[in-house]
Amino acid sequence: MSSRNTAILLVSCPDRKGLVAAIANFLLQHNANILHADQHQDAELGVFLMRVEWDMQDFDLNLTEFEPAFAPVARQFEMQWRLAHSGHRPRMAIFVSRYDHCLADLLYRYQAGELHCEIAIIISNHQDTRWLAETYRIPFQHVGIHKDAKVEAEETQLAILRRQHIDFIVLARYMQVLSPEFIRHYPNRVINIHHSFLPAFHGAKPYHRAFERGVKLIGATSHYVTEVLDDGPIIEQDVTRVSHRDDLNDLIRRGADLEKIVLSRAVRLHIEHRVLLYANKTVIFD
Amino acid sequence: MSSRNTAILLVSCPDRKGLVAAIANFLLQHNANILHADQHQDAELGVFLMRVEWDMQDFDLNLTEFEPAFAPVARQFEMQWRLAHSGHRPRMAIFVSRYDHCLADLLYRYQAGELHCEIAIIISNHQDTRWLAETYRIPFQHVGIHKDAKVEAEETQLAILRRQHIDFIVLARYMQVLSPEFIRHYPNRVINIHHSFLPAFHGAKPYHRAFERGVKLIGATSHYVTEVLDDGPIIEQDVTRVSHRDDLNDLIRRGADLEKIVLSRAVRLHIEHRVLLYANKTVIFD
Amino acid sequence: MSSRNTAILLVSCPDRKGLVAAIANFLLQHNANILHADQHQDAELGVFLMRVEWDMQDFDLNLTEFEPAFAPVARQFEMQWRLAHSGHRPRMAIFVSRYDHCLADLLYRYQAGELHCEIAIIISNHQDTRWLAETYRIPFQHVGIHKDAKVEAEETQLAILRRQHIDFIVLARYMQVLSPEFIRHYPNRVINIHHSFLPAFHGAKPYHRAFERGVKLIGATSHYVTEVLDDGPIIEQDVTRVSHRDDLNDLIRRGADLEKIVLSRAVRLHIEHRVLLYANKTVIFD
Amino acid sequence: MSSRNTAILLVSCPDRKGLVAAIANFLLQHNANILHADQHQDAELGVFLMRVEWDMQDFDLNLTEFEPAFAPVARQFEMQWRLAHSGHRPRMAIFVSRYDHCLADLLYRYQAGELHCEIAIIISNHQDTRWLAETYRIPFQHVGIHKDAKVEAEETQLAILRRQHIDFIVLARYMQVLSPEFIRHYPNRVINIHHSFLPAFHGAKPYHRAFERGVKLIGATSHYVTEVLDDGPIIEQDVTRVSHRDDLNDLIRRGADLEKIVLSRAVRLHIEHRVLLYANKTVIFD
Repeated sequence: MSSRNTAILLVSCPDRKGLVAAIANFLLQHNANILHADQHQDAELGVFLMRVEWDMQDFDLNLTEFEPAFAPVARQFEMQWRLAHSGHRPRMAIFVSRYDHCLADLLYRYQAGELHCEIAIIISNHQDTRWLAETYRIPFQHVGIHKDAKVEAEETQLAILRRQHIDFIVLARYMQVLSPEFIRHYPNRVINIHHSFLPAFHGAKPYHRAFERGVKLIGATSHYVTEVLDDGPIIEQDVTRVSHRDDLNDLIRRGADLEKIVLSRAVRLHIEHRVLLYANKTVIFD
Repeated sequence: MSSRNTAILLVSCPDRKGLVAAIANFLLQHNANILHADQHQDAELGVFLMRVEWDMQDFDLNLTEFEPAFAPVARQFEMQWRLAHSGHRPRMAIFVSRYDHCLADLLYRYQAGELHCEIAIIISNHQDTRWLAETYRIPFQHVGIHKDAKVEAEETQLAILRRQHIDFIVLARYMQVLSPEFIRHYPNRVINIHHSFLPAFHGAKPYHRAFERGVKLIGATSHYVTEVLDDGPIIEQDVTRVSHRDDLNDLIRRGADLEKIVLSRAVRLHIEHRVLLYANKTVIFD
Repeated sequence: MSSRNTAILLVSCPDRKGLVAAIANFLLQHNANILHADQHQDAELGVFLMRVEWDMQDFDLNLTEFEPAFAPVARQFEMQWRLAHSGHRPRMAIFVSRYDHCLADLLYRYQAGELHCEIAIIISNHQDTRWLAETYRIPFQHVGIHKDAKVEAEETQLAILRRQHIDFIVLARYMQVLSPEFIRHYPNRVINIHHSFLPAFHGAKPYHRAFERGVKLIGATSHYVTEVLDDGPIIEQDVTRVSHRDDLNDLIRRGADLEKIVLSRAVRLHIEHRVLLYANKTVIFD
Repeated sequence: MSSRNTAILLVSCPDRKGLVAAIANFLLQHNANILHADQHQDAELGVFLMRVEWDMQDFDLNLTEFEPAFAPVARQFEMQWRLAHSGHRPRMAIFVSRYDHCLADLLYRYQAGELHCEIAIIISNHQDTRWLAETYRIPFQHVGIHKDAKVEAEETQLAILRRQHIDFIVLARYMQVLSPEFIRHYPNRVINIHHSFLPAFHGAKPYHRAFERGVKLIGATSHYVTEVLDDGPIIEQDVTRVSHRDDLNDLIRRGADLEKIVLSRAVRLHIEHRVLLYANKTVIFD
């Protein structure tokens, strides 16, 4: 998929007659060969959402020509839209603390060609994962977080992100809470992995609390970070069965496998422009 | 959903530019308000498949006017298509032998309003399930199967089906193999439930063989019946975990729950015109 | 399994050396043929829990002789224990309101011989499910609940339960909250089904809230009822995947299937004496 | 768990009265503090299987004294048994070809302390995975396989395994079929991962065949290798849902995640002596 020369258009707007025809006609006029199209209507909220992907081969507009050509259609239907090219590799930063399983998993998938992005930088408040960065030859930056100097630390992080032209951030078990100010710089572009089936066990120590509550399944949730802790739009979740034979360490170990899978799926969905947001929820065009 | 006044168009044809636009424009011209649309392109085989559902409220064609109006579009793109109205309740026959869990499940869902069809007749080669038919007030017909008179039995069955204007047949653990001749009367309109994760354990006694093989999961598969046993297009499958603590009876009991869920999902998908067939496979527009 | 003539001993006590030997020796002295034995040690809390089932065929004690014979062993290790005979069918009451899917499922399983108990009475605050009770020939008692007369209603219910010698109660989507006084009459003997993956969405309208939150899986939880709402020991849970294509009605419909499976599993585990309680959690000897 | 000083006894024998008591008494006499005990009776085949783990702290026999002391008990009940010490790290060899995801996963888990063994050697018929061996500092040996010199290649492999005192072998997507002669050197000590839900799609190209068959779930199976291809006792299996939206590459990619999880679980179960074999099946004491 990564080698394909395709364009992806994501649209959301008030639902109205003629929307599909308008988009399909526009693409046809410019000789697009549609490869995938998926749409969703939320009847209650009257929202229309669409993802359409076409081959750029015969398409008679390039990416810069697209905007002015499409503008009248977009205006007519009050569309919010964005266009992406499958050949573009968005620049990703990974934040990590001490637990390294999600980082190791992302790096392995990256070098295996599974993630169509550039991992530009790994930022950590610890030194423990430096060896992984070195193994996969990714720049590693240590930014220590002192209780009394969080603002300064975030400023340092933001400076690095700007310098690296980062498009989106993945929190791969990063154990610090980012400030609302920080998040406002990357709205819906910070992906977190929380080690529970949200909204159950939001906040600290979810495995401990799952163990105490005696649940029969544990989960992991990947979501966009918003200003409210563990409350952002959910991209992906999964669970696995546990029993009384699993002690707390078993929960942590088995949960780690869930976290890796769930986070990597969410990152992939984000990179492939398969996530559309509305009403604090996601539509996943898989 | 059942009370909505909608039309559903299912299309399959060679993939070509302009297909989506052609269909969308046709619907727009006739003032359709599209509620759902889903399509799939098989790049390798060059096949385009689509399901589109619209509100009949403002649509300016009735169902009989649709065909001549749509014919030019269909011809241009060499479409195979069919149109259904959500208000139409297809007539279903259930074949059953002695195991009654799938039958009981379908009947309960039917009376609960979950299945938008008419269960016109229950046909069985045993008397055991007559009480269920009577409870839910569905006509019950006993057609005994004698080893030397299978042809006659099928003729009796076919006569009943014709008299009842049956649209499709559900084999709810019917333990007889239908002849190719019989199946040709209802191509892709006989839905079976097989008590294994096909293609594993096709044929007889799948739970016994699963137990002997020591598998860690058991499954159930619902598929359209073709002339090759247990080889038809798969509509739905699911599995559940088992362990050495489960003996053969546990497998049979736990498998029964799978069979009910999988068969009822498949029947529902069929009734709602969400299944498209190509290359001995199904596309499920869910 | 129901036809077997077996005894089941459930033990919980402080963990100590010699426990397994003491129990095994006692059983051997009385010529027991052990069919299943399962135990669990909670290292942190120092708790030992055991379930052992043996054939009564050659066992040289009957059920009334067991207690005095076993008392010295029990005393020595400070055991809490109970003995059950597989041939005994505990008497169960079902409470239900309007949603009938769990009730219908339990009744079908009951008549199919899947639940080794006596369903002695169905109590409802509505008349809607009377037809199901009549179909399966189970006594049905309507006890209306008036906002200002809840105490009286519970007294009526308790009188019925006493008259029927009820051993345990199943709340099959019973939409009233039972008072602490009521629950104290049946400690750890009231089984509820909650239509969410607890502790997520405890309380009212869990499907609505799951839909609003945009979760990717919905769940159901069966638990013993305690005085704190939706907080009792969890017996069984399960989940199923949903997507943006599922509207609220789809969630409710698909959740109903989960509720049936989860509740019936929990009831079965309870009846077969496979549930041991400690620290507000369950150990499931499956 | 790895740091505990425990002993594990695995027993299988004809089922007889007094077995549990005999083992429990023997352990009590020698002052064992039992941490876990699990047993299984196969009623049909009359087989008794047990895993018991105890603390060595107060145990008054060391590992070499155990055998003569336990011999009379074992003889009396015709037991097959083996004893393991949790502190002993079995020596493991990994065979791999070009696909490296399972190898990378095992190596990461190994360095993270999740696998309580020594990975002594990686043997490959290709050079592609040498970098992974070097990253994790594991000896790597290339043994090319030429069509006409398979016997010689296996002899070379066997010589390496002997030199390294290998206890068991993991085939981490090793694309060569081992000869019966080879396998006889490591009976029930070669663990394979097959990329399908066995017995479905045994043999070559399972993902291709799963795609063609249109299954709705794909699977992975880890099993001990026997002389019959893909027919050995199954240790672990799992599945994941796929749809028509997944092309062959998606199946391969998503299956890879299953393979990693399933193989690593199987290896862990083997290392922790949680697998007992009988009747070409496994009992998993988890």
